[in-house]
Amino acid sequence: MQKQILLLGVFGHPKSNTQTLAHWVLEGLDYTTINLADRQLNFIQDQRWAPLWLPPVDDYQKILQAFLAAPTVVLASPIYWYGLAARLKAFIERWSETLALEPTFRQRIACKRLILLMVGGDDPRVKAQPIVQQVAEICAFLGMTLQATVIGQANRPGSLSNDPVAVRQAASLNQDLKAVGQ
Amino acid sequence: MQKQILLLGVFGHPKSNTQTLAHWVLEGLDYTTINLADRQLNFIQDQRWAPLWLPPVDDYQKILQAFLAAPTVVLASPIYWYGLAARLKAFIERWSETLALEPTFRQRIACKRLILLMVGGDDPRVKAQPIVQQVAEICAFLGMTLQATVIGQANRPGSLSNDPVAVRQAASLNQDLKAVGQ
Amino acid sequence: MQKQILLLGVFGHPKSNTQTLAHWVLEGLDYTTINLADRQLNFIQDQRWAPLWLPPVDDYQKILQAFLAAPTVVLASPIYWYGLAARLKAFIERWSETLALEPTFRQRIACKRLILLMVGGDDPRVKAQPIVQQVAEICAFLGMTLQATVIGQANRPGSLSNDPVAVRQAASLNQDLKAVGQ
Amino acid sequence: MQKQILLLGVFGHPKSNTQTLAHWVLEGLDYTTINLADRQLNFIQDQRWAPLWLPPVDDYQKILQAFLAAPTVVLASPIYWYGLAARLKAFIERWSETLALEPTFRQRIACKRLILLMVGGDDPRVKAQPIVQQVAEICAFLGMTLQATVIGQANRPGSLSNDPVAVRQAASLNQDLKAVGQ
Repeated sequence: MQKQILLLGVFGHPKSNTQTLAHWVLEGLDYTTINLADRQLNFIQDQRWAPLWLPPVDDYQKILQAFLAAPTVVLASPIYWYGLAARLKAFIERWSETLALEPTFRQRIACKRLILLMVGGDDPRVKAQPIVQQVAEICAFLGMTLQATVIGQANRPGSLSNDPVAVRQAASLNQDLKAVGQ
Repeated sequence: MQKQILLLGVFGHPKSNTQTLAHWVLEGLDYTTINLADRQLNFIQDQRWAPLWLPPVDDYQKILQAFLAAPTVVLASPIYWYGLAARLKAFIERWSETLALEPTFRQRIACKRLILLMVGGDDPRVKAQPIVQQVAEICAFLGMTLQATVIGQANRPGSLSNDPVAVRQAASLNQDLKAVGQ
Repeated sequence: MQKQILLLGVFGHPKSNTQTLAHWVLEGLDYTTINLADRQLNFIQDQRWAPLWLPPVDDYQKILQAFLAAPTVVLASPIYWYGLAARLKAFIERWSETLALEPTFRQRIACKRLILLMVGGDDPRVKAQPIVQQVAEICAFLGMTLQATVIGQANRPGSLSNDPVAVRQAASLNQDLKAVGQ
Repeated sequence: MQKQILLLGVFGHPKSNTQTLAHWVLEGLDYTTINLADRQLNFIQDQRWAPLWLPPVDDYQKILQAFLAAPTVVLASPIYWYGLAARLKAFIERWSETLALEPTFRQRIACKRLILLMVGGDDPRVKAQPIVQQVAEICAFLGMTLQATVIGQANRPGSLSNDPVAVRQAASLNQDLKAVGQ
C-alpha cells in the first residue's frame, strides 16, 4: 500500500546529519525512503527543441512515480557549496523532460506539500536562505506548497544533536505532522 | 511586572493583517504591544566619527528598553516594496547609535529569541525570503536567535483568514510558544 | 534646464564612501544631487483604505518631481544592517501614496533606468545580494530597468579607495555612461 | 600555450543562448572552451570521513586542471529551475574531494577571477539573484573574485538578441576585458 509520506534525500554517510534530521521529523510516522546517493540518475539532456525526446535509462522514472504518489514529500539535502546537493537538483531538472513528455505531470504534482530539510556547516540558517527561496520559486511554479523548512547546523557526522534549534524545530514539526494524521 | 514577550510591530490599519497574524500567534499568551506607527521615531544621524553623538529626542529609548527587557520579541511587519517597513528598519538602524554609546548593549541583546511575522500581497512566501535572510544576518551579527518565521499572504485589510498556510502555521507556532511556557 | 541624471543618495558623513563611489561613477557627467540626509521626509501613513489620503507636509513632492524628471537615477545608499538606508526605503514607500493619488505616476516612472550603488563593511558583495534582489523586484513591478549595480567595501570614512574592485567597476561604469552620451 | 581565459559552460542546444552570451562577452579574445554537456562527470561520493578517498574515473581531473590554469574563468550556465545547471554544480561539488586530497588546491584557486553568465526565461534578472549570491559565497570561501555578472533573458533557442540589456552589458564587459589585455 502506498504510504502518505516520501522521504527523498541525499545521505552519503552512515551517520549522515541530514538523515538524522529527517528521522527526527518523521519519528513515529509511516514513510518510504529513497536515498538518491544509492540510485542511478543521469543529468538531463535538454531536448526541448528536438523532434523526439529520448530519456536516458536510469532510475528516474521509479523515483518520479514514488514522488508523485505521495501527498507529502520531505526533501532532505546536505548543503553543498551553498546549494542543494547536485544529485537532488539533477532529479528536479529531469522534470523538464517530464513536463515535455507527460501531459498529466502538472496536474499530478500540483497541491503536493513539500517539507524542506537541510544541514550545513557554515552558518546555514543565514546562508541557506537563497536555497529556501529557490525551492519556494519551484513550488510556486508548479503549484506545490512549501509547508515547512528546518535548517540544521553540523560540521561532523553525528554532531547535529549539538544544535538545539534543529532539535526543537524538528520535534515541533514532528508534532504538527502527527496532529494532521500523516 | 515585565512581560516575557514583546510584540513590536507596524500596524497602520484598524484591520491590519499583520496585527491579525500576530494575534493568532500570541493568542492566550501574555505580551506587551508596541505599534511603531503610533510612536515618534527619527532616522539615525550617523555620528560614529563625530566627537560626540547627540541622539534625537523621540520615543527610541522607551522602545529600546522594552525590547531589551523581553526574552522573546515578535517582530511584525507588513512587506512594503519587498522589504521590512521603513519604520521598523529605522528602529533597527538606531542600534548603531546604541552600540556606540552603551557598552552593555551587545551583552543585553545577545541570546534574545526573535520571531518574525510578515504579511504581503505579491507572492510573499517566495519574495520575502531576502527579508528573512536580512533578519537572519542581523541576528547572527548580534547573537540573537531567529526562532521562527511566518509569512502570510493578503491583499486587503481583514483578508488574511483566506490564507490557509498562514492560519495553520500561526496555530502551530502558538502551540509551540505555549508548550515552552512563554 | 533639467539634467539627465539624478543622484539620489544618503550621505551622512563629509567623507561618505557612498558619495565617493557615486562621484567616481558620475565623474565628468552632468548631474543633480539630492542627499536624503539633508531633507525632511516623513514615514508613509498607509491610508489606502481611508476615504481621503492626506499626505504629510515635507520635502517628498520636490524629491519625487526630481526623480520623475531624470531619465537615469543613481540610487546611492550605505548598507545599514544588511539593507538599504531607512531614509531611502521611506522615500520608496511613499510611492504607495503617489500610486493612490497620481494616475500618471506609473506611466512616468516606467522605462526609467536605475543604477544602484552601495557601500558596506561586512562582506557586502555577498551579503548585499538580497538588496539587489529587492531593488530588482521594485524595478520589475514598476517597469524600470536596473541598468547596473556597483557594491563597494569600506569600514571607515574615506577608505573606499582601498577596494580595487569598486575602483575598477566604477571607472568602467563611468565609461559606459559617457559612451551613451549621458 | 596556456590561454588566459577558460569558458566553462553548459551548452545543450546548438543555438544555446548561454553560449551566445558567452561569445558576445569573449568576442575578439583568446580563450579555451569546455562544454560540460559533452563531458563525463560523476556526482561526488562524500568520503571525507572514510580512511581513503577513491575518486571516480571520469573527466573531472582534466576539467579541473584547465580551470586552475586560467587566471580568468567564465562560468556560463542556463538557469534551470532557479539554479545553476546541475552539471556545473556537480563539478563544483567535486572540489570537496580536491580540498581533501590536494594540499595546494586552496592556494591555486585563490585570486582567480570569475565571470558569471546566466540565461533564463522567468524574469531572470530578479529571480537569479540567489544564484549570484551562492556564487559570491563560493568565491568568498575560496578567495576568488566575482568580477562581473551578466544575466540574459530568453525563452527560445536563438532569441537572446531580443534582450537589449544583455546585448549592452555583454558588449560593455567585452570592452572591459579587452582593456585589461585579457
